[in-house]
Amino acid sequence: MLLSMLGLEHTIVPISLPDREQKTPAHLARNPLGTLPVLEDGEAVIYDSQAILVYLAAKHGGAAWLPTDPIGLATISQWLSFATNEIWNGPAIARACLRFKRDVDLDRAQVAGRTALAVMDAHLSTHDWLALDRPTIADIACYPYAALAEEGEISLAPYGALNAWFKRIEALPGYVSMPGLG
Amino acid sequence: MLLSMLGLEHTIVPISLPDREQKTPAHLARNPLGTLPVLEDGEAVIYDSQAILVYLAAKHGGAAWLPTDPIGLATISQWLSFATNEIWNGPAIARACLRFKRDVDLDRAQVAGRTALAVMDAHLSTHDWLALDRPTIADIACYPYAALAEEGEISLAPYGALNAWFKRIEALPGYVSMPGLG
Repeated sequence: MLLSMLGLEHTIVPISLPDREQKTPAHLARNPLGTLPVLEDGEAVIYDSQAILVYLAAKHGGAAWLPTDPIGLATISQWLSFATNEIWNGPAIARACLRFKRDVDLDRAQVAGRTALAVMDAHLSTHDWLALDRPTIADIACYPYAALAEEGEISLAPYGALNAWFKRIEALPGYVSMPGLG
Repeated sequence: MLLSMLGLEHTIVPISLPDREQKTPAHLARNPLGTLPVLEDGEAVIYDSQAILVYLAAKHGGAAWLPTDPIGLATISQWLSFATNEIWNGPAIARACLRFKRDVDLDRAQVAGRTALAVMDAHLSTHDWLALDRPTIADIACYPYAALAEEGEISLAPYGALNAWFKRIEALPGYVSMPGLG
């Protein structure tokens, strides 16, 4: 999504998770964790969704997407950690369990997911965007698995401010949807 | 530890986890996640360990601890995510289970922990430091719960390069130990 929002040409190369292509030697050479996505940009090979956002924003997005002042940078880092921990271990894992039969504790993921979504909803009831007064990579990092929570059987109905934020993101220039998103 | 390494004066204010002080309204006003640590610096209130490292490095550490070029910043972000996900959900959670009776799936945490430590060990067999050619906040973020893995009954014996890296960190000026660390 950030590639699109920044207007950057790119080629998407599919890696088949059912065929375990993410664990082949070729892919492990790109990313020792054997996860997706990975960004290749010339000699640079960056894995981890949050690190890819940082790379693209620092290289192409400028301070609009990733400021350099200590408080701005730290506030965005808070939400990148939130995407990596609370959102991943909540709605993302619940969805992976129900859609892709990932072996996890579904109850625990759904409880954690509701807590995470409630934290976002409370924050967004007094803020238009997660980290700053404009969209940043914090919003891009947290949006997809929050917006897909119902695929993990976590209802989004209780969260009015969260749903309004989804709409703001979906109205941004360059927004790209995927199945299940607005 | 980074406060000490940067030579910054600070006061440590204990918050009692057994007494659930991290869930009081006063603390939730500092950090809606109700977790520790939180850094207060004048008007700035930063929660999340990784965000605190980013803040301190950006404000006081300079490019030595947190570079501003896209690749350096992204490489450090990879390891901050690794600390938040792989280390937290591995050795840190296993330790929390055994030391503090946290209700988690210990087997799963120990398996994830061994995978995470093996990834670090392989990387450190060809690198002195995790992200760059010098110590950065990536090392500070990943060190404590990796070095405390045996408190989660995850043996550190198989990981020669990891143990050598522990020693390099423990030799840095300003290093502060805690019970269970070198």
